Amino acid sequence: MSSQSSSQGIDLIPGGTITTPRGFLGGATYTGLKERRQDTLDLGLLFSEVPCTAAGVFTNNRVKAAPVILCQRHLSDGRAQAIVANSGCANACTGERGFDDAAEVAALAAEKLGLAPGDVLVASTGPIGLPLPMPRFREGIPRLSLSPEGGHQLAKAIMTTDTFAKEIAVREKEGGFSVGGIAKGAGMIHPDLATMLCFLTTDAAVEADFLQSALEKAVNTSFNMITIDGDTSPNDSVILLANARLEREVHAEAFQAALEDVCIRLARYIAGDGEGATRLIEVKVEGAHNLAEARLAARTIASSPLVKAMVHGGDPNWGRIIAALGRSGSEVVESRIDLYLDHLCLVRSGLPLEFDEGEAKAILSRSEVPFRVCLNLSQGEAKAWGCDLSEEYVTINSAYTT
Amino acid sequence: MSSQSSSQGIDLIPGGTITTPRGFLGGATYTGLKERRQDTLDLGLLFSEVPCTAAGVFTNNRVKAAPVILCQRHLSDGRAQAIVANSGCANACTGERGFDDAAEVAALAAEKLGLAPGDVLVASTGPIGLPLPMPRFREGIPRLSLSPEGGHQLAKAIMTTDTFAKEIAVREKEGGFSVGGIAKGAGMIHPDLATMLCFLTTDAAVEADFLQSALEKAVNTSFNMITIDGDTSPNDSVILLANARLEREVHAEAFQAALEDVCIRLARYIAGDGEGATRLIEVKVEGAHNLAEARLAARTIASSPLVKAMVHGGDPNWGRIIAALGRSGSEVVESRIDLYLDHLCLVRSGLPLEFDEGEAKAILSRSEVPFRVCLNLSQGEAKAWGCDLSEEYVTINSAYTT
Repeated sequence: MSSQSSSQGIDLIPGGTITTPRGFLGGATYTGLKERRQDTLDLGLLFSEVPCTAAGVFTNNRVKAAPVILCQRHLSDGRAQAIVANSGCANACTGERGFDDAAEVAALAAEKLGLAPGDVLVASTGPIGLPLPMPRFREGIPRLSLSPEGGHQLAKAIMTTDTFAKEIAVREKEGGFSVGGIAKGAGMIHPDLATMLCFLTTDAAVEADFLQSALEKAVNTSFNMITIDGDTSPNDSVILLANARLEREVHAEAFQAALEDVCIRLARYIAGDGEGATRLIEVKVEGAHNLAEARLAARTIASSPLVKAMVHGGDPNWGRIIAALGRSGSEVVESRIDLYLDHLCLVRSGLPLEFDEGEAKAILSRSEVPFRVCLNLSQGEAKAWGCDLSEEYVTINSAYTT
Repeated sequence: MSSQSSSQGIDLIPGGTITTPRGFLGGATYTGLKERRQDTLDLGLLFSEVPCTAAGVFTNNRVKAAPVILCQRHLSDGRAQAIVANSGCANACTGERGFDDAAEVAALAAEKLGLAPGDVLVASTGPIGLPLPMPRFREGIPRLSLSPEGGHQLAKAIMTTDTFAKEIAVREKEGGFSVGGIAKGAGMIHPDLATMLCFLTTDAAVEADFLQSALEKAVNTSFNMITIDGDTSPNDSVILLANARLEREVHAEAFQAALEDVCIRLARYIAGDGEGATRLIEVKVEGAHNLAEARLAARTIASSPLVKAMVHGGDPNWGRIIAALGRSGSEVVESRIDLYLDHLCLVRSGLPLEFDEGEAKAILSRSEVPFRVCLNLSQGEAKAWGCDLSEEYVTINSAYTT
């Protein structure tokens, strides 16, 4: 990979998914892990025709699900060739048995695909504290069929209460490399623990070390900047496979830009499809002391229940944004704060401005609500995404599950 | 004050309030700061017949309301003799004008009471970004009347959407010192920014330095361990006045114990009366690496929206508690975690136990729901309090306010 700067742009591929990059196949089936509704799928497989360099970023929760620990082990050589994923059971808080089960899932897929088990990664989402029902995997994995269009099925197989399948692919202009991805967000067939899963592929040739650092950088500006409810799952996983099927040099900057583009689009899908959510909130913080403080401020505002409820009600109650900013830990000089709702300036130099309430309500009722906070201290800048807090979120999450 | 250990107990005084300790008077009136309903009061005054040592603990929000900054200045000598408090307007994000207004409020009360303005503290709660309507204060403060029973009125004057006045007093057995207090929690006449206010009095003779450290200690185990929604107000204030009207030596340990008892009771009132709440959640963490980690773990669990929604729904969905624990930052060894719902053990050594779901549901439907997490690592122990998350919380906080 060259680090020469590229001015080439990136094209969104209509109908693109995780199997859009060359050499990736996917498929999914229904095994009974979750209750059957129309078109329900619950077990899926991603396969690269050739070995890949691989990178992963996993939950910071001290309680890690068995598949997360297995993935971290299998990624220690920076290589992988397949991912098995299921919904309907998280295989978390399952002790030694959980590890044995995750290892058997990898072994079953390895046997089907003719790989070493160490080249198979495993991801699970669903209720925690229950063991994987292994007979369903022993029966289901062998009958999975794979195709270049199978990414769509895989995207469906990891959905729980997501209201749409989250998939995307981009291609570098003029026939360059592709990056594809699928993700699932906050939603569960048994309302339980929200797990974020994201799988990404590329046909670019990328060394494992660069791949890992590129993924970490992209995750920091995308998945680490979304929030549904502040809770972190023991299963959260983002995995990227690069199979080098494009036999052409790739510019590092162009690859990083494409990867971040895909991650941000998927992250926005997840945020906007939060449980019970009716709209996406985007918070941009500018002029912070540094990048870390800009991120902290943006995330704190986007995750404030009072800000989220205010957006749900279409209420330009800006004091809540200033209050969340103030408690974020970011450096703030009250008399320098400017606050915008889209183009409407609500606060200038820390003091309220008169604004058109009808216009503010109209902006707050859009499907995407953009806030911009200018701290006017230095150059730190970040964006975070969240969703409104609705009565429906509470209803979904207070339902009896056992 | 003697530091000799005391074995004397503490009695709850029926009907006790902030003016129960000797030498304190209170009163309140209605000035039009909030919409009038039956018995609405919005401006109150607390007065000690003699000068007091005084201590205060204030919001950590970087955006601090004008009255908070004024209190910090007026407390710099460790002395005060009166508190003026209003609901209906927070005097936050009001710039220089806000400071001038808060200073005028103190001056008006000082003139009425024959005090220096520096001996008067000021507290405000309500919507932010609006200036104090000073004519109401100029008219209202002179006509306030004070009495030894007036603490009840003062407790009402600081209420917003609180569903009951939060007041209490305790007395050391055998005619010793008293400690009284009032508080307001998360609720606003215009649903806006939740401000916590608490005023405390004692007739004990307590030096200012000890008073401040005793208050900080008591706040750490009470108000700093409650959470409604994770948002922190620019107006949060806890103020303690000690007027030494009891002419008798007070044991430091007995005073600290009584102060903590009052603070914890008021804190529990606030948590259980959170906006939209139907029950109090108590989370006890035992066996943590140290006290700081025990507090962190207990607070994180008590503030998790998924845990709060689960309690609202009466759903013993314990995976959410383990997940919140895991992300808390507290040291956790999964295989050592025990989790109890009241006396029911749900998890032992990190693995789920069979339990009686009907019994679990019955416990979850009580007005107080106690969880206990044993980390089995060391001696750190802490309790935190929160409330369930109901659809009503969202409804209250999404209402249009402007």
